[in-house]
Amino acid sequence: MTTPSLLILPGDGIGPEVMAEVRKIIDWMGAKRGLDFDVSEDLVGGAAYDKHGTPLHDDTMAKAQEVDAVLLGAVGGPKYDVLDFSVKPERGLLRLRKEMDLYANLRPAQCFDALSDFSSLKQEVVAGLDIMIIRELTSGVYFGEPRGIHKEGNERVGINTQRYTESEIARVARSAFEMARKRGNKVCSMEKANVMESGILWRDVVQEIHDAEYPDVELSHMYADAGAMQLTRWPKQFDVIVTDNLFGDLLSDLAAMLTGSLGMLPSASLGAPMANGRPKALYEPVHGSAPDIAGQGKANPIACILSFAMALRYSFDLGDEATRVERAVEQVLADGLRTADLMGPEGGVPVSTSGMGDAIVAAL
Amino acid sequence: MTTPSLLILPGDGIGPEVMAEVRKIIDWMGAKRGLDFDVSEDLVGGAAYDKHGTPLHDDTMAKAQEVDAVLLGAVGGPKYDVLDFSVKPERGLLRLRKEMDLYANLRPAQCFDALSDFSSLKQEVVAGLDIMIIRELTSGVYFGEPRGIHKEGNERVGINTQRYTESEIARVARSAFEMARKRGNKVCSMEKANVMESGILWRDVVQEIHDAEYPDVELSHMYADAGAMQLTRWPKQFDVIVTDNLFGDLLSDLAAMLTGSLGMLPSASLGAPMANGRPKALYEPVHGSAPDIAGQGKANPIACILSFAMALRYSFDLGDEATRVERAVEQVLADGLRTADLMGPEGGVPVSTSGMGDAIVAAL
Ligand SMILES: CC(C)[C@H](C(=O)O)[C@@H](O)C(=O)O
Ligand SMILES: CC(C)[C@H](C(=O)O)[C@@H](O)C(=O)O
Repeated sequence: MTTPSLLILPGDGIGPEVMAEVRKIIDWMGAKRGLDFDVSEDLVGGAAYDKHGTPLHDDTMAKAQEVDAVLLGAVGGPKYDVLDFSVKPERGLLRLRKEMDLYANLRPAQCFDALSDFSSLKQEVVAGLDIMIIRELTSGVYFGEPRGIHKEGNERVGINTQRYTESEIARVARSAFEMARKRGNKVCSMEKANVMESGILWRDVVQEIHDAEYPDVELSHMYADAGAMQLTRWPKQFDVIVTDNLFGDLLSDLAAMLTGSLGMLPSASLGAPMANGRPKALYEPVHGSAPDIAGQGKANPIACILSFAMALRYSFDLGDEATRVERAVEQVLADGLRTADLMGPEGGVPVSTSGMGDAIVAAL
Repeated sequence: MTTPSLLILPGDGIGPEVMAEVRKIIDWMGAKRGLDFDVSEDLVGGAAYDKHGTPLHDDTMAKAQEVDAVLLGAVGGPKYDVLDFSVKPERGLLRLRKEMDLYANLRPAQCFDALSDFSSLKQEVVAGLDIMIIRELTSGVYFGEPRGIHKEGNERVGINTQRYTESEIARVARSAFEMARKRGNKVCSMEKANVMESGILWRDVVQEIHDAEYPDVELSHMYADAGAMQLTRWPKQFDVIVTDNLFGDLLSDLAAMLTGSLGMLPSASLGAPMANGRPKALYEPVHGSAPDIAGQGKANPIACILSFAMALRYSFDLGDEATRVERAVEQVLADGLRTADLMGPEGGVPVSTSGMGDAIVAAL
C-alpha cells in the first residue's frame, strides 16, 4: 500500500496555530504507530491572496484533487473585508468544495461530558447530545446561476438562485441514510416545502430514495424554521438531519452552539470515491479563523485535531486510531485541562494552544 | 372619527378557539372603555379551501385591503398536505402579505418573568430578554421568479430565486431604525454577504440608509449563521435585528423558542400608510395551527390576544390600551394561571383556553 497523502492548508487567523498541534498528532502516529503520511502544506484564503492575489492558487487546487485528504484550518479576517467578492478568502474554500465535488458535509454536534455545563442551554437538554447534520455542500443558492447585482432603472437589484437537481438531492440523501444506519437509524430531512418549489423537490426525492433503497431507516420531514425551533427546544429528538447548503449552514451552526463548545467541533466534507476507493475529502474545524485571538496561543486546537480524527476514520479506514485520538481528547478534558474558550465558572487547569496539543499527545 | 374596522380571519386548527378569546377582549373594550370596533369575520387557509376551493377568496382579499387591520389565527393542517402547492393553506397567508404589501414583519421575542424557567436555555441567559426581529416579508426567495420544478433531460430540477431590490431593502431598514430609536437604539443586520450577492446588496443598502438618515442608531452586521449562533449563545446582546424573508423565518422562530413559550408570542406585519394615515396591517400569533390539540380547549390564547394588543398600539394609536392588555396578561401569569403548554415542573393553576381568556378579561 502506498503512503496515504495529506494536504494541509492552515489558512488564516488561528488556522496555522491549531494546525501546528495536529502536526504533533501526525508525527506521533508515525513514530508510535508506524502510520506514515505523505504530508504537504500550502496556502488558502487570505494567506493565499497575500502571496498570489487569489484565495486559492490553481496549483493548490490541482494538488487538492490528487491527495487522499485535505485538512484545512480556517479562512478569513477583517483585513480582507475590503476585497472584491471574487477574491475574498471564503472563495478559496468554496472553490475547493465545488471543484472537489464534496457534496456531503458531515457536521457532528456532540456534547462532551466534561463540558455539558458549558452550553447556554440547560444541562439536561444537552448532556449526552450526539447528532449528525449532513449538509449538502456543492449546490443550492451558494452556486446557482444567475447571480449578481445589476441595475434596473434607477436601482440596484441583487439576485441569487436556489437550484437543486434530483441527482444532487439523491446522493446526499443516500449519505444521510448510510450514516443513520451506522447510528440511531433515524433521518429528519429539513426544507421549506411550504414555500419553495426546490423544497418540494427536496422532500419528494428524499422520500423516494428512502422508499426505494432505505425503507428500514426511520424518515421524517420538517420545515426548516420548525427545525430551528426543535433543535433549540429538545435537540436529542434528532439522530441524523439532512438539509440543503444554506439551511445547513445556519442549522449546523446552531446545533454546534447548542453544545456550548465550538472549539471542539470537527467536520468532514466528502465527495465521490476516487480510483483508490477513498472518497474525495476535506476536513476542517467548525470554528472560524478568530482573528481577535490569533497568534496569542489562546486558540483551542481540539476541533482541528478531531477533524484529523475524522480523516483517520473516513479517508484512511483507521477507525480505531480515530477513536484513540478521541479518547485522548476526552482524557485531557476529564483531567481538567482547559484552553481559554473552555474556561467556565468551575475553572480548570489553564493551558495554551500548544499545551493542549502536548497534553493530547501525552494522553495518546 | 369613524369606527375602526377589523377583519378577523380565524383560519384553521386552534385558530378559531384562540380568536374566540380575543373577541372577549374586543367586547370588553367596547363595553368598558367605549372603544368600538367594526368587526367582520371571514375564512382563510384550509377553512377557505374547504368552502371555496381556494385558501383565500377574492372577496376576502378585497375586504382585507379595505379594513384598518386584519387579525389572523393560524393556517394549515395535515388534512391539506395532499393539496397542490398553489392551493395550500399557506398560500392564503402569503397572498395577504404580498397583496397588502406588508413588508415589515415585527416579531418580538420577549421572555416573561413568570415563565423564564420555561426555556430550554439557562435562566440567566433568557431572563428579561426583549428583542425585536424585523423580517422583510414581501420579497426574497418567497416570491422571486423564476421558480418551479421542471425537467432537464431525465431529471427534475427545482428552482427558486432570491431577489431583492434596493428600495425593498431600504424601506424595511427604515422600519428597523425607527423601531430601534423607540427601544435600545441598536440594529444588527443579518445576511450571508460572504456567499450571496443579494446579501452584499442588503448589507450595503442598510449601511447607506443608516449613514444618510439614522447615523444616531448603532448599526452592526452579522452573517446569518453567526447570528443563529449568537442568538443561541447570548441573545441579550441584541436589540433590533433586521433580516430578509427566509433568514427571518428561521431566526425569528429560533428567537421565539429561546423564550420557551411560543404560545405567548404575537407578531405584526405592517405596510405603507393608507389614506387615513394608518399602516396596512395584519396581526397574527407566532404559533401555528397546532392541529394535534385543536378543539380540545388546550390552546393558549395569549399570543393571539397579544397580537390584538399590537393592533391597538400600531394600527389604532391606543398604546395605553395595549399596555393595559399586556399588564392583564402578566397579572394572570403572576397569579399562576397556566394553559397546558405553560404547565412546567413548578405547576400552576391549570386553565382551559376559555378559562385563560376569561381570567384576562377579569384582570383588565
Ligand atoms: C466561510 C463560509 C463561506 C462558510 C459557509 O457559509 O459555508 C462557513 O460559514 C461554513 O459553514 O463552512
Ligand atoms: C406558514 C408559513 C408560510 C410561514 C412562513 O414561512 O413565512 C410561517 O412559517 C411564518 O413564519 O409566518
